[in-house]
Amino acid sequence: MSAPLKIAVAGLGTVGAGLVKLLASQAALLEARCGRRLVVTAVAARDRHKQRDIDISKFAWFDDPVEMARSADADAVVELIGGADGPAKALAEAAFARKRHVVTANKAMLAHHGAALAAAAERAGVTLGYEAAVAGGIPIVKALREGLAGNRIQRVYGILNGTCNYILTVMRESGRSFADVLADAQKMGYAEADPSLDVDGVDTAHKLAVLASLAFGTAVDFDAVSVAGIRNVSPMDLEYAGELGFRIKLLAIGRRTAKGIEQRVHPCMIPAETALARVDGVFNAVMVDGDFAGNTVYVGRGAGQNPTASAVASDLVDLARGARSPAFGVPAAKLAKLEAAPMAEHRGRYYIRLMVRDQPGVIADVSAALRDERVSMESMLQRGRSETKAVPVVLTTHETVEAAMLRALDRIGRLDSVIEPPCMIRIEEL
Amino acid sequence: MSAPLKIAVAGLGTVGAGLVKLLASQAALLEARCGRRLVVTAVAARDRHKQRDIDISKFAWFDDPVEMARSADADAVVELIGGADGPAKALAEAAFARKRHVVTANKAMLAHHGAALAAAAERAGVTLGYEAAVAGGIPIVKALREGLAGNRIQRVYGILNGTCNYILTVMRESGRSFADVLADAQKMGYAEADPSLDVDGVDTAHKLAVLASLAFGTAVDFDAVSVAGIRNVSPMDLEYAGELGFRIKLLAIGRRTAKGIEQRVHPCMIPAETALARVDGVFNAVMVDGDFAGNTVYVGRGAGQNPTASAVASDLVDLARGARSPAFGVPAAKLAKLEAAPMAEHRGRYYIRLMVRDQPGVIADVSAALRDERVSMESMLQRGRSETKAVPVVLTTHETVEAAMLRALDRIGRLDSVIEPPCMIRIEEL
Repeated sequence: MSAPLKIAVAGLGTVGAGLVKLLASQAALLEARCGRRLVVTAVAARDRHKQRDIDISKFAWFDDPVEMARSADADAVVELIGGADGPAKALAEAAFARKRHVVTANKAMLAHHGAALAAAAERAGVTLGYEAAVAGGIPIVKALREGLAGNRIQRVYGILNGTCNYILTVMRESGRSFADVLADAQKMGYAEADPSLDVDGVDTAHKLAVLASLAFGTAVDFDAVSVAGIRNVSPMDLEYAGELGFRIKLLAIGRRTAKGIEQRVHPCMIPAETALARVDGVFNAVMVDGDFAGNTVYVGRGAGQNPTASAVASDLVDLARGARSPAFGVPAAKLAKLEAAPMAEHRGRYYIRLMVRDQPGVIADVSAALRDERVSMESMLQRGRSETKAVPVVLTTHETVEAAMLRALDRIGRLDSVIEPPCMIRIEEL
Repeated sequence: MSAPLKIAVAGLGTVGAGLVKLLASQAALLEARCGRRLVVTAVAARDRHKQRDIDISKFAWFDDPVEMARSADADAVVELIGGADGPAKALAEAAFARKRHVVTANKAMLAHHGAALAAAAERAGVTLGYEAAVAGGIPIVKALREGLAGNRIQRVYGILNGTCNYILTVMRESGRSFADVLADAQKMGYAEADPSLDVDGVDTAHKLAVLASLAFGTAVDFDAVSVAGIRNVSPMDLEYAGELGFRIKLLAIGRRTAKGIEQRVHPCMIPAETALARVDGVFNAVMVDGDFAGNTVYVGRGAGQNPTASAVASDLVDLARGARSPAFGVPAAKLAKLEAAPMAEHRGRYYIRLMVRDQPGVIADVSAALRDERVSMESMLQRGRSETKAVPVVLTTHETVEAAMLRALDRIGRLDSVIEPPCMIRIEEL
């Protein structure tokens, strides 16, 4: 039996407490699986005396997580503080400086500093583990880095934010507005008091930047992600989506194209009969297209105390077993610079909803704008009629270039008869 | 850069040829990912001069795979011959004797000798890799052994045989008989000339025995798997399933129960709206219930040249990177003896179809038999009426004990008015 793996845990919030509980309740199982014990030796959090449902009296206490990373009796430091910079990053750097492994659930930090941290880990000869940073309990990092390591990945995409998926699911089922459903989700603890990281797509984009690096062997490049959230999705669009045979999901899509790597996060219309369309509520789903494995799908709980603790534990088990892989699949020095495919050159189909004055000639004006940009209409719906109120006109296009679509929409938006900014949702072929 | 990982490949059929192609076409990618090259040094197959679409002239040739395992210049031997015993097993043993890693796609061998082979690998200080043995391109072995290593697994279940799933899918869509659809599947290469391994559930049972060992930390015990195939599923049952809101799938189910580990393979009625019910055609799907991760789902191509080669490659990448885990999650000596839960004590709901003479009193006789065994009926359907021909009576039960169900069916089968052996399909709660 080897010496125990000594673990210092920074951050005792939901996930940190979950991890401490997991390591206690699965101690025998983990010892059998690793051939050694996994023991928490030290913890750091903001308030030592906060009421917690875990007993921390046996662990060395540190007020300062960075100091803990430096001087605790530990082989690995688990970072569960969060935030792209600040103590989380300082802690990781301090751990690497002392040749300690780092396991983190911090997608923001990885999205902004992933390649640099991977390089620092390699210089120190230790590991940067982050299974918990993407898709919670789903072992998708391991699947990409190891399980699919024989594949050139063409595309990785999915639903990576349970809060948005939950809100869109409830909006569709209830017909209620975004603001209304968000307020309820906040009350129930499914959304944060400040929901913007989630609903504006930023959290999803952090995760996509990490997955894309792993999938394509490129340095994490958060700035190259095109991001739009779900604030502007209206019940009306969800209803039209249903009529047209679609569901609306906030998707993260990373894709190799002839023009470079596409990384985008935005609401998508996807065919209602696809597996992804049926992933509802707080679940996450990731799909990967590999050139040998084909399309593989991974579904599970994307957040929460226990699923996230499970992911952290899997990284710790790898450390305890001595299994080592480069953080992003190849050594940091071999990560290519990500050549970003410009969104303006994205090709796809589009759903457009206009709110118009119901008067003769509107459709002719809209059609002319599309024609002039060579955007080909696939379908058009004008249901309601009203002499006084705006009525919706919904259309879908055949495949076209985004730049042309945007130019046409700009012209359409300036028509007198169009009285709200047009709503555009990309239709995604899966 | 470390020395190359030298690989000897035994068996150059579909998968073997696929692996040789993968290692050639992904050579640069694999070298970047592993920090060393993965090179085939030797091959063995039945006929050296067979026409192949791969060039084997640069590899050392062996007529005898066992001799290759002994004397080729190789770090790892890939076994793609098949068969529970014979050359496959001899090859693995020869490789271990020479302290060479073994990577195999051979579920039959693992189902019968998995624990002994894992022990032999450990004694030799080498690895037994078998990602390709279960669910083709889906990295489910890695997910269970590593990604979910922080979990006590309660249940692992899914669709593990693409041939059966394809046949059931086509039967449902077309209303055609099993024999008819099987014959077509054989013509198209989706089913073997001798289909029994697939359609009788044996292949699925091999895979389940392996997954259960991994999930529950028990020694592989194929004999403890209760197996029934799909030969007796009729178009009539598929149609009734649809009416009742179910789909029929051949499922593999491994589950912890108070009475021990349940391992069973049989056609199941599952709710039509569940994710598993929608996995059609040649796809595989595996679901895992972990106590921390919750339910996670893995879907992909369960067979075929490229997906299987992808799985073999992932094991080779682990070897090249030096990543090591015990074959079945814990050291072979720690694998518990599997205590099998007796099928007679299985509790569940049942679908029963009887072919009866349409005469007064039949339902009363059937009901009495059920009542005497305390089996509670949930629904009953008697559609057709005929004075001359047998008509179907379909019923579903509330949860009951299998032994009671079988006693009731025995009595029902002996009724004069019941003119065929009753058809029983278990209803599975997912």
